[in-house]
Amino acid sequence: MTRLSETLLSGYDRSLDLDGFSGSRLAERLSVISEIGLTAEGGSNRPGYSKAEQKAKDLVCGWMREAGLAVRQDGAGNCFGRLAGGQDHLPVILCGSHIDTVPNGGHFDGVLGVLLALETVEMWRATGFTPQRPYEIGIFSEEEGSSFNAGLIGSSAVIGAPVIGELDKIVDHEGRSFAAAVAEVGLSLAGFPAARRDLSEIAAFVEVHIEQGLVLEAHGLPVGIVNGICGIVGLEMTVTGIPGHAGTTPMGYRRDALVAASRMVAAISELPKQVSDTAVATVGQLRVFPNGSNVIPGKVRFSLDIRDVADEPLERLVSRIVQTATGIAEAANVEHTWTRTFTEPAVAVDERLKTRQADALREINLAAFELPSGAGHDAMIIGAHVPMAMFFVRSKDGISHNPCEFSTLADCATSARALARFLAKLVSDTAD
Amino acid sequence: MTRLSETLLSGYDRSLDLDGFSGSRLAERLSVISEIGLTAEGGSNRPGYSKAEQKAKDLVCGWMREAGLAVRQDGAGNCFGRLAGGQDHLPVILCGSHIDTVPNGGHFDGVLGVLLALETVEMWRATGFTPQRPYEIGIFSEEEGSSFNAGLIGSSAVIGAPVIGELDKIVDHEGRSFAAAVAEVGLSLAGFPAARRDLSEIAAFVEVHIEQGLVLEAHGLPVGIVNGICGIVGLEMTVTGIPGHAGTTPMGYRRDALVAASRMVAAISELPKQVSDTAVATVGQLRVFPNGSNVIPGKVRFSLDIRDVADEPLERLVSRIVQTATGIAEAANVEHTWTRTFTEPAVAVDERLKTRQADALREINLAAFELPSGAGHDAMIIGAHVPMAMFFVRSKDGISHNPCEFSTLADCATSARALARFLAKLVSDTAD
Repeated sequence: MTRLSETLLSGYDRSLDLDGFSGSRLAERLSVISEIGLTAEGGSNRPGYSKAEQKAKDLVCGWMREAGLAVRQDGAGNCFGRLAGGQDHLPVILCGSHIDTVPNGGHFDGVLGVLLALETVEMWRATGFTPQRPYEIGIFSEEEGSSFNAGLIGSSAVIGAPVIGELDKIVDHEGRSFAAAVAEVGLSLAGFPAARRDLSEIAAFVEVHIEQGLVLEAHGLPVGIVNGICGIVGLEMTVTGIPGHAGTTPMGYRRDALVAASRMVAAISELPKQVSDTAVATVGQLRVFPNGSNVIPGKVRFSLDIRDVADEPLERLVSRIVQTATGIAEAANVEHTWTRTFTEPAVAVDERLKTRQADALREINLAAFELPSGAGHDAMIIGAHVPMAMFFVRSKDGISHNPCEFSTLADCATSARALARFLAKLVSDTAD
Repeated sequence: MTRLSETLLSGYDRSLDLDGFSGSRLAERLSVISEIGLTAEGGSNRPGYSKAEQKAKDLVCGWMREAGLAVRQDGAGNCFGRLAGGQDHLPVILCGSHIDTVPNGGHFDGVLGVLLALETVEMWRATGFTPQRPYEIGIFSEEEGSSFNAGLIGSSAVIGAPVIGELDKIVDHEGRSFAAAVAEVGLSLAGFPAARRDLSEIAAFVEVHIEQGLVLEAHGLPVGIVNGICGIVGLEMTVTGIPGHAGTTPMGYRRDALVAASRMVAAISELPKQVSDTAVATVGQLRVFPNGSNVIPGKVRFSLDIRDVADEPLERLVSRIVQTATGIAEAANVEHTWTRTFTEPAVAVDERLKTRQADALREINLAAFELPSGAGHDAMIIGAHVPMAMFFVRSKDGISHNPCEFSTLADCATSARALARFLAKLVSDTAD
């Protein structure tokens, strides 16, 4: 199998090695980490709190030590590498992401954010830049939630989220307890609450992440500024009609649950644009009962995943969707029930940070293009309490959570420059 | 468990025992047969070529002998009871149905047609009527096709259909061969071709069947005249879009297979009425891939069951459906493929027979109401070669293939009178 570093470096133009960035260093590091938990399909398999995730963390911690950082691991397995500032008592600028993957996942999701946070230190060292504020790299444990269907654990521990008090109730799909899982990487449940940090000591949190979507690619841009992390509302709708024989029930006598549900799905797809440019609504799961080719469907159940960057338009969209579905059900003489399965509030990015991101991009002659984050990230957890900013890096074909996930080394280089310049502004600002 | 006869007779008004009909006799016979293969849910389980089906046939053959008929079983397990006519050389009037059931099926589907064919003889005996033409009752084997997914076997053998030459290739869902199955009820594959009859010796075929639909109930009528047996076209459509993350793919970038398929299902439901009053189209089976709540569907596959009483409007509807789906796919920028999975031509009823059915109904002061048969029946097989007529008996709530399947004894009594009078006309007519 070709090493990832070879793929990344083939066709990479070394004239992009600017501001102290090293394409070969980043390519080699991405490559070495990709080989931890490498699957037959060429993906990575590093579930949260697995030995593979721990091995990847240990490796990065070694690189952080080599870069002169003070490294520590907290009780939730999060790793931090600290670069002292000229005024080291000031609240820190924290930058990072995660290093775990979904099963047979890609080599950029999470990892790139961790390695660019580290690359920033390498670039500062190479260019002789010294920060006034302290700077920290964070590697947050178990972001994906692949094993326990409860992700974002590491960042949740940092902010002391309520979920941390309930980890003793969590089991994986094989019935193994969360406590037993973390014990295998030398952690204990008792250590998790101690991972909580005094958030007043964090001036800002910054995360770089691959976009996992098609927007930057469609606009021909290597990197973009995230203008908000979408809130998510989950609904489950059930449409109940009357099952019947496909041959013996004339059209006018039918109460076909699938015809009504189809009208709903079609109508719902038209609603997000009525609310905002950033709103989305997805019916991803739909099941028909009894699902026989000669039986008029008696019942249809479907999921709705509704997102927007702000809670007000999101809730307006949810209301409009329910109202539309109810109207269609009434017109079709079928029953319609719905339940809200979850609500995840939107997280705003810090406007002042966003302005500085735009400045950093313009300095290197790039468009300050903004786009929403539809997926949750560690920045969503920490950003609910601390000023937060995110950069997205272009994803090839928008593919993620898949061995084919890819971002070019050129895009990584450009993102590294934008990040290092943006962070340099933050660690140089001693006001507040 | 209450016996079916008690349920039937409770509330039955014996003043409906007219023209020699006996409500208690029919109720008892329906009840005794319902108990062969009785399920815990109160349904009947008599698959084709099972010992239960054979036991039910043997029972009816005994009743036919008691009624003075000459009884025989052919090589396909079909049973016939013959009443000689005054001019016994004339082609016979054949009347019957089947006595097998779907798993956990009802107590009227098929059985009622067999018992009313026999009740006619009982009524003629009671009233001293003697036929000029010979009259035969037929019990056709394996109509439902529950075991081998190939029904209408007995009637297909009578007409010598090609499928009878391919029975050696058929296996059930447990891998048991058709030959092994029929051996258990004393039949051999070699006997099936011999069941073929000289169809010129059959003047007409008549079948009474429960409607299995809501039309007669909606019109408040106990019995109706079938004006055609629907042809059926089966299609399978596949819609292929591009799967994507529900959060990271803005609405404008989507090629959502389910949104496109939903537009198709909704639009297709509006098309039958453009073609005829009798046309129907049903999407009964629909599957979404990958069917994850936070994944934009990349593929949807669905079945189409399209029926009408004549082939021309049926094919016109099929074309219109394919055209509509193709147009929607193009507008939605998704791929659309379709295959025709089967074609069953429509079978017309004999217009002269239909006129006599109407006469028989009017004689007993009933409306000569016509309705299509959306389901296939033994009459569909035999009617493709022999003048054919069918009566439908009202089904409570349109329910069939279910333990709750029910027709009142009053409706059975009225149908018996209509049938006996209609058949009396046919066996009295010695022309041709």
